[in-house]
Amino acid sequence: MTDRCSVTYHVRSGSAAIEARAAAIAVEQSVEMPLAGIDDAAVLSDIVGKVEQIDDLGGGTFRVRIGLAAATIGDDPGQWLNMLFGNTSLHDDVILRDAVIPERFRPAAGGTPRLRQRLGIPQRAFTGSALKPQGLQPERLAQLAERMALGQLDFIKDDHGLADQTYSPFAVRVPLIAAAVARAVRCTGHQTRYIPSLTGDLDQLRTQAGIARDCGLDCMMVVPMIAGFAATRTLTRSFPEVTFFAHPAMGGAARIAPELLIGKLFPALGCGAVIFPTYGGRFGYSPATCRELVTNARPALAVPAGGITLNRVGELLDFYGPDTMLLIGGNLLLAGERITEQAAGFANAVAQHGTK
Amino acid sequence: MTDRCSVTYHVRSGSAAIEARAAAIAVEQSVEMPLAGIDDAAVLSDIVGKVEQIDDLGGGTFRVRIGLAAATIGDDPGQWLNMLFGNTSLHDDVILRDAVIPERFRPAAGGTPRLRQRLGIPQRAFTGSALKPQGLQPERLAQLAERMALGQLDFIKDDHGLADQTYSPFAVRVPLIAAAVARAVRCTGHQTRYIPSLTGDLDQLRTQAGIARDCGLDCMMVVPMIAGFAATRTLTRSFPEVTFFAHPAMGGAARIAPELLIGKLFPALGCGAVIFPTYGGRFGYSPATCRELVTNARPALAVPAGGITLNRVGELLDFYGPDTMLLIGGNLLLAGERITEQAAGFANAVAQHGTK
Repeated sequence: MTDRCSVTYHVRSGSAAIEARAAAIAVEQSVEMPLAGIDDAAVLSDIVGKVEQIDDLGGGTFRVRIGLAAATIGDDPGQWLNMLFGNTSLHDDVILRDAVIPERFRPAAGGTPRLRQRLGIPQRAFTGSALKPQGLQPERLAQLAERMALGQLDFIKDDHGLADQTYSPFAVRVPLIAAAVARAVRCTGHQTRYIPSLTGDLDQLRTQAGIARDCGLDCMMVVPMIAGFAATRTLTRSFPEVTFFAHPAMGGAARIAPELLIGKLFPALGCGAVIFPTYGGRFGYSPATCRELVTNARPALAVPAGGITLNRVGELLDFYGPDTMLLIGGNLLLAGERITEQAAGFANAVAQHGTK
Repeated sequence: MTDRCSVTYHVRSGSAAIEARAAAIAVEQSVEMPLAGIDDAAVLSDIVGKVEQIDDLGGGTFRVRIGLAAATIGDDPGQWLNMLFGNTSLHDDVILRDAVIPERFRPAAGGTPRLRQRLGIPQRAFTGSALKPQGLQPERLAQLAERMALGQLDFIKDDHGLADQTYSPFAVRVPLIAAAVARAVRCTGHQTRYIPSLTGDLDQLRTQAGIARDCGLDCMMVVPMIAGFAATRTLTRSFPEVTFFAHPAMGGAARIAPELLIGKLFPALGCGAVIFPTYGGRFGYSPATCRELVTNARPALAVPAGGITLNRVGELLDFYGPDTMLLIGGNLLLAGERITEQAAGFANAVAQHGTK
């Protein structure tokens, strides 16, 4: 018996053509050559992808489930992505919709339970905001972070545009911001966490994570689709005490279902929290997509974001429940000089939710 | 004067909405927050993306050119991709169509001229095939490679599905295949090159490249969209004597124009040869797309692939010209026991082309 991992694609096709199209995907995502050219019986039986099921979803779309041989994936997360969608991503009639996560890529413990314990927040939802805009000097970002933290937010993250730019090098920016947030924490007694964004190749990611850890930080952010799947997992395994927040940039929602990419694959790389564009914001995910994504991602912390306004706190917490960090970035920054009061109002609204 | 890099998007929109949509993309790909919340004049003038031009392409599609501040990109290829398309890739109304390549990412010398010199092939097109199917033992792959090389092909590459699997570990497979090809070269006198596929995180990529170099190999393959942009460039810079072939897997053609991704971005990472699905094969690129992609990629070697049959050699060389490697994989493998003769026929067809 071959150990197989089921992968689900949505394929646009006519009824007459779907069986052949499904078989072609199964070949493309495995041996990538005409079966007539294979004379090895074990390859034909154990390695070639198998079409397991085809369902007509109506409207010219079919759900195709293919069993890929686990042996072709091995233990490399990059090769896993390659087998899931590598060449087929070049065909515009196919969406990668779902996949069974192989045992070896099952998310490690961590995520929400660990964050609840560390921050001493047993039940309610978490609050968060983002340091923006890029282009500010490190001192200005640190000042902003301190004022947000004085409002007793739970998390303050780097905008994913903050990298290692000349005007704000990581090694200067992160210690300054970490110190600013630490000052606020000493003042408020509230365990606000700063989440720096890590960028670059694996060497740079590790160096930056080391700098952040030396600042006492235990939450960091990474962009798996840019860093690469293999680098992301190596990073998360190298710093097991850190909770990694996965940012969805380059997620290309139209071709890989966010329920899979963000809800399953990012946690499988070791990320303990997943940031995603919520329904009703400036990105187009539906409530159903958001619900499935969040369910998939547990126990990773769900971090809906992308244009959330303060007046939506109640509605979003009703929808997502408490194992959530509400991330309000740009809309909080509109408060200007009143940022601490706005942050406090936000923190308070979340704390009060459900107690009414 | 701010140094800006122009980026071109194709946006589906109504006429009335396009100006606001373009402005929103310019904000999303730079400061990612409401402009009203920014009180720093330098950020507003130098960092916020600028809509430079909007053209109506008809059919509800607009071409939007945005100038991004070069300072936000810096020298990190991952951050470059992030600024080009990070968050906007999550919107399904936008395709990343083109970008001016910043000076610091201009492709290094190498590519076709270096390959011509090394292989001693001054003018004609190159031939290549691929080692498949995955699942074969290293000995079988080496045997196949030797028989192909006896047919005097110029290049024999790993299938991009060959990684570091248990049944065929890189460190076993690559030296065996390299030795097999070297035996054939001693027999034929023809400078056949073996191109192993490198996988994993940066540590693994470097280790594998070192193993390959120790086998005397000077051509290797990498998948930039899986390895990550930053890792790919670090790799190409670490092994400047190697010509790296970029494989397009995970290229998501429907969202990032292949003319840009494969034609410009992959060479900018240091790859000296780009593999792409040709028109008329099993992927859907048009002749116009292929022509522009190849023009963009020069002096990188153009490697059309994806279902090429032997009877198309003349047509494809007429179309692509001689700075090309024709990559015939699966269709050559259909020859079974006659693989050497088929490879020789292929090599001969390319050598004869244009001399008739």
